[in-house]
Amino acid sequence: MLRVGYIGLGLMGAPIARNLLRAGFQVVVHNRSRAIVDQLATEGALPAETPAEVARQVDILCTNLPDSADVAQVVLGEHGVVEGAHSGLIFMDNSTIKPETARMLAQSLALHGVPALDAPVSGGQIGAEQATLVYMVGGSAEAFTKAIPVFQATGKAWTHVGESGAGQIAKACNQIMVAAQMVAMGELLVLAQKAGVDPFKVVAAIRGGAAQCWTLDTKPQRLAEGIRTPGFKARMQLKDLNIVLETGKTYGAPLPLSEIATEVFRQMVENGGGELDNAAVLSVFEQIANVRVGQADS
Amino acid sequence: MLRVGYIGLGLMGAPIARNLLRAGFQVVVHNRSRAIVDQLATEGALPAETPAEVARQVDILCTNLPDSADVAQVVLGEHGVVEGAHSGLIFMDNSTIKPETARMLAQSLALHGVPALDAPVSGGQIGAEQATLVYMVGGSAEAFTKAIPVFQATGKAWTHVGESGAGQIAKACNQIMVAAQMVAMGELLVLAQKAGVDPFKVVAAIRGGAAQCWTLDTKPQRLAEGIRTPGFKARMQLKDLNIVLETGKTYGAPLPLSEIATEVFRQMVENGGGELDNAAVLSVFEQIANVRVGQADS
Repeated sequence: MLRVGYIGLGLMGAPIARNLLRAGFQVVVHNRSRAIVDQLATEGALPAETPAEVARQVDILCTNLPDSADVAQVVLGEHGVVEGAHSGLIFMDNSTIKPETARMLAQSLALHGVPALDAPVSGGQIGAEQATLVYMVGGSAEAFTKAIPVFQATGKAWTHVGESGAGQIAKACNQIMVAAQMVAMGELLVLAQKAGVDPFKVVAAIRGGAAQCWTLDTKPQRLAEGIRTPGFKARMQLKDLNIVLETGKTYGAPLPLSEIATEVFRQMVENGGGELDNAAVLSVFEQIANVRVGQADS
Repeated sequence: MLRVGYIGLGLMGAPIARNLLRAGFQVVVHNRSRAIVDQLATEGALPAETPAEVARQVDILCTNLPDSADVAQVVLGEHGVVEGAHSGLIFMDNSTIKPETARMLAQSLALHGVPALDAPVSGGQIGAEQATLVYMVGGSAEAFTKAIPVFQATGKAWTHVGESGAGQIAKACNQIMVAAQMVAMGELLVLAQKAGVDPFKVVAAIRGGAAQCWTLDTKPQRLAEGIRTPGFKARMQLKDLNIVLETGKTYGAPLPLSEIATEVFRQMVENGGGELDNAAVLSVFEQIANVRVGQADS
């Protein structure tokens, strides 16, 4: 039986760990705050005190943490993954972090004989709960193949994009498109409202054409009902966009559209909207235009 | 048998007129340059010398012209549509023009007893040829209902969005989303290339997730093969974006993302790329980053 470790049991990590349990794997879990560890223990997971302790007991160790520094700390810090390194261990990070950090961690882990996959996901909390995540993966083809049972138990698609860091590059690319769609949807909904046209009839008219996207397919219904809770939190979208812009600088790629999208999300977070869904970014334009799209917040 | 007039037989108008002929309608055509009129006459269309002459002979008169002023001229100018106005005539404009012009023309035509529909389309030349256009329609519900046979013969979806001008507002909203996707795709493809990751593997990894869109589903394959011909010309995308920005000013709606998208398309057109496909907008970023995505132009 495959033994899988999961470190970082937040909105994404906890449902992923549950799906691994459902798939019949032995699952060892660790988290900075203890409550969710105790909860998962009642559901069949084995609790561990440190990342090293997780590493010692598993074949594949996954992390799902807020930012680059958190993943580096869990891998390289005191009682970190490298202290529990053993032959046969594969490390897989599902966080969205800087591609440069992913490459650095892969190099460090290689010195301990541990192959590393950077395997960030798209699909949000719902995707994590429904096991329909989309994995974009960097690292060795061999490690990728060995990790497929984990992908199968938690996702609907997994693509080996390239060497270490390529998964995070793909995730940055994903966020360029997602953020552009969210901000564009905000602009068009507010424009329609200001012009006296039903924004949701506009969506019905355009979503079958060249503008078609998952964003227009899924988000307007919730906005029409006044639901602006996540989904995917705006402050996480902003965090990911900051990675996008940094990655652009690192590699010399121009990102003028993403810069504006980042500014709009920064404004949303500064206005106190960081805990709302990323599709609620239209609120920035509503405030400027003094208008409201859809029902009041429910 | 429904008699349909078509004025403006360009890349969109000519294939639409052909689909109307195929549907069995009597089709009366007019165009500024005569060659395509003669061609369509050999295929069964009746040629007419002026817009007024078209109007006199048909139940529904459609226009498909480059810009707002062209439509106004054909409707209100010498030998224009209003000169051929008769009881039972419906006017339908398939061009992408300013919502304000659409509303003004509807008012002018109403004085002659002619109901007007602003019915711009999405789907491009391929949609026109394959009769899979998406119509977004403003005007009276009665006129909309009478025009359904035209929609059925030439499109796959038609939505009555609201009163006169609402179709053009929806089209502006459509172009906000389409332009954002095109520019975002350009940014992400060039970022991947600069980071040493296969841009088309990135697309394969992300297109099944939250970034999914018609743009990512259809355009990267052509770019990979070095095909950058239209499709939908960049200079028309720029024209439409200028309408978007003007509409935003008219109604007081903030459009910071669309402003950047417009700037990028303006740069593309100034660099000589106006006749290329709108998806070739990545060339602006390629030039800045000194890199090439996909095969050489074919």
